Amino acid sequence: MHYTKSELENLGDFYKNQLLNDTLPFWFPRSLDEEFGGYLLMRDHDGTLIDTDKAVWIQGRAAWLLATLYNTVEPRQEWLEGAKSGIDFLNKHCFDTDGRMFFHMTRQGEPIRKRRYFFSETFAVIAHAAYAKASGDQEAADKARYLFGKCIEYATTPGLLEPKFTSTRPAKGIGVPMILMNTAQQLRETIGDPRCDALIDQFIEEIERDFVKDDIRCVMEQVAPDGSIIDHIDGRTLNPGHGIEGAWFILHEAKYRNNDPRLIALGCKMLDYMWERGWDKEFGGIYYFRDVYGKPVQEYWQDMKFWWPHNEVIIATLLAYALTQDKKYAKWHTMVHDWAYTHFHDQEHGEWFGYLHRDGSVAQTAKGNLFKGPFHLPRQEWYCAQLMQELVGKNAEKTIVETEKQNF
Amino acid sequence: MHYTKSELENLGDFYKNQLLNDTLPFWFPRSLDEEFGGYLLMRDHDGTLIDTDKAVWIQGRAAWLLATLYNTVEPRQEWLEGAKSGIDFLNKHCFDTDGRMFFHMTRQGEPIRKRRYFFSETFAVIAHAAYAKASGDQEAADKARYLFGKCIEYATTPGLLEPKFTSTRPAKGIGVPMILMNTAQQLRETIGDPRCDALIDQFIEEIERDFVKDDIRCVMEQVAPDGSIIDHIDGRTLNPGHGIEGAWFILHEAKYRNNDPRLIALGCKMLDYMWERGWDKEFGGIYYFRDVYGKPVQEYWQDMKFWWPHNEVIIATLLAYALTQDKKYAKWHTMVHDWAYTHFHDQEHGEWFGYLHRDGSVAQTAKGNLFKGPFHLPRQEWYCAQLMQELVGKNAEKTIVETEKQNF
Repeated sequence: MHYTKSELENLGDFYKNQLLNDTLPFWFPRSLDEEFGGYLLMRDHDGTLIDTDKAVWIQGRAAWLLATLYNTVEPRQEWLEGAKSGIDFLNKHCFDTDGRMFFHMTRQGEPIRKRRYFFSETFAVIAHAAYAKASGDQEAADKARYLFGKCIEYATTPGLLEPKFTSTRPAKGIGVPMILMNTAQQLRETIGDPRCDALIDQFIEEIERDFVKDDIRCVMEQVAPDGSIIDHIDGRTLNPGHGIEGAWFILHEAKYRNNDPRLIALGCKMLDYMWERGWDKEFGGIYYFRDVYGKPVQEYWQDMKFWWPHNEVIIATLLAYALTQDKKYAKWHTMVHDWAYTHFHDQEHGEWFGYLHRDGSVAQTAKGNLFKGPFHLPRQEWYCAQLMQELVGKNAEKTIVETEKQNF
Repeated sequence: MHYTKSELENLGDFYKNQLLNDTLPFWFPRSLDEEFGGYLLMRDHDGTLIDTDKAVWIQGRAAWLLATLYNTVEPRQEWLEGAKSGIDFLNKHCFDTDGRMFFHMTRQGEPIRKRRYFFSETFAVIAHAAYAKASGDQEAADKARYLFGKCIEYATTPGLLEPKFTSTRPAKGIGVPMILMNTAQQLRETIGDPRCDALIDQFIEEIERDFVKDDIRCVMEQVAPDGSIIDHIDGRTLNPGHGIEGAWFILHEAKYRNNDPRLIALGCKMLDYMWERGWDKEFGGIYYFRDVYGKPVQEYWQDMKFWWPHNEVIIATLLAYALTQDKKYAKWHTMVHDWAYTHFHDQEHGEWFGYLHRDGSVAQTAKGNLFKGPFHLPRQEWYCAQLMQELVGKNAEKTIVETEKQNF
């Protein structure tokens, strides 16, 4: 199957409509914490608050979303003010005295937990960058660039962050080059940063060299430092939705670089490999984890269907189709889109459920918690809507590519 | 319903037969690592080894099991030698230079991970104590008593172990007094230790005072230091199978103390509260997690059915029935026994699957991994078989109570 131009237009309209009239109204304005700043995002299916705590990752991600909508959809004042509230909360409360960020805060901004990772920081980078572009705030731009430098330092300086494992069986995850690549892309495409292009080249090179295995058609989640497969339970565990997120970050880079054919081929084969391993042929949807050799996976939720892998696969298949016009990707996009909007979307209260059983039934009803908030779903709807605008040239607003190439 | 004497005899025979002819042969002798010592326990449903790594908790638990069978079922030489292999592996490889134990080892005994808990140590205590009783090894007895002292020190000295959370919202778990109570019981009932009775009193007092909530009929998994409920996602999360494990530790103590009526009442109400909250009325089986107020639980596997809560509930209901003759407990025991042996037991290869979906279908097939091994199921079958022997007076072998009261 191919998508006709009018089907692509309809898809773009669908995503934009879902974003602005279904997803976003679930979260805002009610999640703005007028008293302490930041956002109250831990909510049940009907919007009831189940916890007043604030997850630092998601405070940053929500600020990014609001600023990005302001930058790319329309300059609504409430989005800019909403973004500022998150930025202020991050800066007022979420940094420890050693400069690193916390992970989990009380509503008032007291720290509950700090982790041995720097993902709080990467989301703070994209939040500050998008907000700096939206507001013209030079301090936010400086902070984004400074924090990005810290992230690179944490990632490349052995021993700087306390390790979780001994040095007996060294391993590295695809998550680090992936998140740093996407952070660099966001930084470049909002306020610009001369470091980004070369770093992105390095991250892609590392992913291709060490994590993409053509002989077994697989994107590894974790490998030894030399890229070899660690044949133990953890080392064999694959995360298809995550590998496919990596695929679309690379496809996005291909598009940014005037449809670079080498990067299109790399992103598409990553998508192909992990679609084959991740799509559940019996019940539909994307498995959470798989074992590279088909052995039992230890993580208990391995065959559950989570919202975010579906967001990543919807983006990746639509972007792959846009870049290649290969009808296979239109077919896959239809499959994952239909399955996801049928099973995850809450017709009654809007937004998506996060956690389904393998068979697609709802396992629990929270729309927001320590790990889920207004990010993967609205990002997918936003990205796909923007992509369709570009592709069918329907909309006179700035397209993603044009927006991307502006510097601050 | 009541159990007749012959039904109790049949139950005892059933458990003993399952233990010796179904569960144990799945693991031994093939799991004995002749080359490096210890046990190779990470196995798929058919016994295939899926990982050569060794989980320190489970090395200790398996050594405990083999020594306990030697002590209480029959003095088979291969059980004693098997226990020694695990004890030797623990002592040769599993202690760090600071005296604390590791969590996850390679087959050869190199450390992969150490955690901020002392559960490796508690299982090493019961392994050493049971092995000391079996072998007469004074060094093992000393080690058991020494390590038990260290566990008490870790549990009662603030700041001795690195905390995972800040001090913003202090909390304590029921797991610590529970595991220390059971460790003390094991120590006392194998080699004896004068510290144990008073400590057990303290642990029970803490559980009753801070974790058992009569007003809402609940056993909390986590509370504030003063026993108040922490109304956030983590603080609200209940683990019914764990609470019921705590119930049977207390019922065991009641039995040890000549059927102490106060402790029987406490253990039974804990069982009652968590049966009401934990039993899945729609599909049967025990839920993994529940929220105290019925809100969404964040842990993804919250409604799955895991093997070990069912082992705990089988023990607790049978022990409650033995102590009270309340027909409610016979009914519950039948319900959980039938559901568990129908859904978890692998007719083809023996032992139990570990991880079922809520509806009772198998989610993944591993019988052993970093967290599952020869412990909860064989302990249940052993404990219930011993209990039935006592109750119906059928067997001339030493009963649990007689065994318990011997000192080393």
